[in-house]
Amino acid sequence: MPQSGRFITLEGGEGAGKSTQAALLAQALNAAGVPVLRTREPGGAPGAEALRQLLLEGPVAWDPLAECLLHFAARAEHVAKTIRPALEAGTWVVCDRFFDSTLVYQGWGQGADRAVIAQLVDMLGLRPDLTLVLDVPVEVSMARLAGRGTAADRYERLGAPFFARIREGFLAVAAAEPGRCAVVNAADAMDAVAAQVTDAVRVRLGRP
Amino acid sequence: MPQSGRFITLEGGEGAGKSTQAALLAQALNAAGVPVLRTREPGGAPGAEALRQLLLEGPVAWDPLAECLLHFAARAEHVAKTIRPALEAGTWVVCDRFFDSTLVYQGWGQGADRAVIAQLVDMLGLRPDLTLVLDVPVEVSMARLAGRGTAADRYERLGAPFFARIREGFLAVAAAEPGRCAVVNAADAMDAVAAQVTDAVRVRLGRP
Repeated sequence: MPQSGRFITLEGGEGAGKSTQAALLAQALNAAGVPVLRTREPGGAPGAEALRQLLLEGPVAWDPLAECLLHFAARAEHVAKTIRPALEAGTWVVCDRFFDSTLVYQGWGQGADRAVIAQLVDMLGLRPDLTLVLDVPVEVSMARLAGRGTAADRYERLGAPFFARIREGFLAVAAAEPGRCAVVNAADAMDAVAAQVTDAVRVRLGRP
Repeated sequence: MPQSGRFITLEGGEGAGKSTQAALLAQALNAAGVPVLRTREPGGAPGAEALRQLLLEGPVAWDPLAECLLHFAARAEHVAKTIRPALEAGTWVVCDRFFDSTLVYQGWGQGADRAVIAQLVDMLGLRPDLTLVLDVPVEVSMARLAGRGTAADRYERLGAPFFARIREGFLAVAAAEPGRCAVVNAADAMDAVAAQVTDAVRVRLGRP
């Protein structure tokens, strides 16, 4: 049986560059001969993708507890069907958003009970080996989003005070778990951020 | 502000006659001048109905933890949007299945972690004032289902050993919480069962 893969998550607010950095990290690991699965939440497995639609595009304004439970239902499915099998096969998993996003968006951002979310995290039975928290000042994230030119999603419409709470939440998560989390200055240019990311992975996990 | 309504749930295995008895109980309460909302799970609110479809008719064989979380997400939505507003308006709520069904079907029937389900129950923050456990011998429920002549659903296909575990689970729930639960002999004729149900409601809740 191969050695278990390592589980890396990327977290941060809108416009922090998570998807770009996840792609670059997966490339760097692949180039170093490490088998990598890149995935993202909500979603990442067929049932979880169906829930993603209900969460992001559905007509319902969910009750806050229902919304947290839905995120964790999608996550449990993602872990069982996609993440855990990959890790057990020796594949590294790079995931764009994981439970910290629910803790920060629903807990810090929207006032859901953070103790309840912590109980849901424990039910999952899987924590990342390394969480990269991509940190950008609020004005940088808002400028990057405006530059995208796509229709604002439900979080983008909430504006600067919401973005500030989200940033504060992610920094608090990172401060509370320094052994798992590394904060990356994501206001830098793309290549400079990618260098910080690969440095953090090398220092914490020994590769690439 | 009117006095709060009371919350009554009907529980039991397939073919126990819950829907019929819920309808008869709602009629009896209405006839006694008690305002009643009749509802059922999974479902009972628009978001919860969307989840019902994914749970009962979707193409996914859900991970056991994901399935429990989905049932409780639907339930949290049902409580927030339908049940709690009715109770606060003084309406009595008669609900066909509630959290005991998840505890028994997923916990007793399919081996999901019962301690996890108990944590999810606590998160809801709402327990029924009275739970009527409609109990029938396994052979009676199987004969009633065969008589319906509809296509077997996923539980019906699991057969007698599964039905026996479900019955054992509901009786264990009732024995563990005698203050909340009343066991009704549902193998009797419909009218005799209805009389037991209204007796239990009168003794426990003072109406109709």
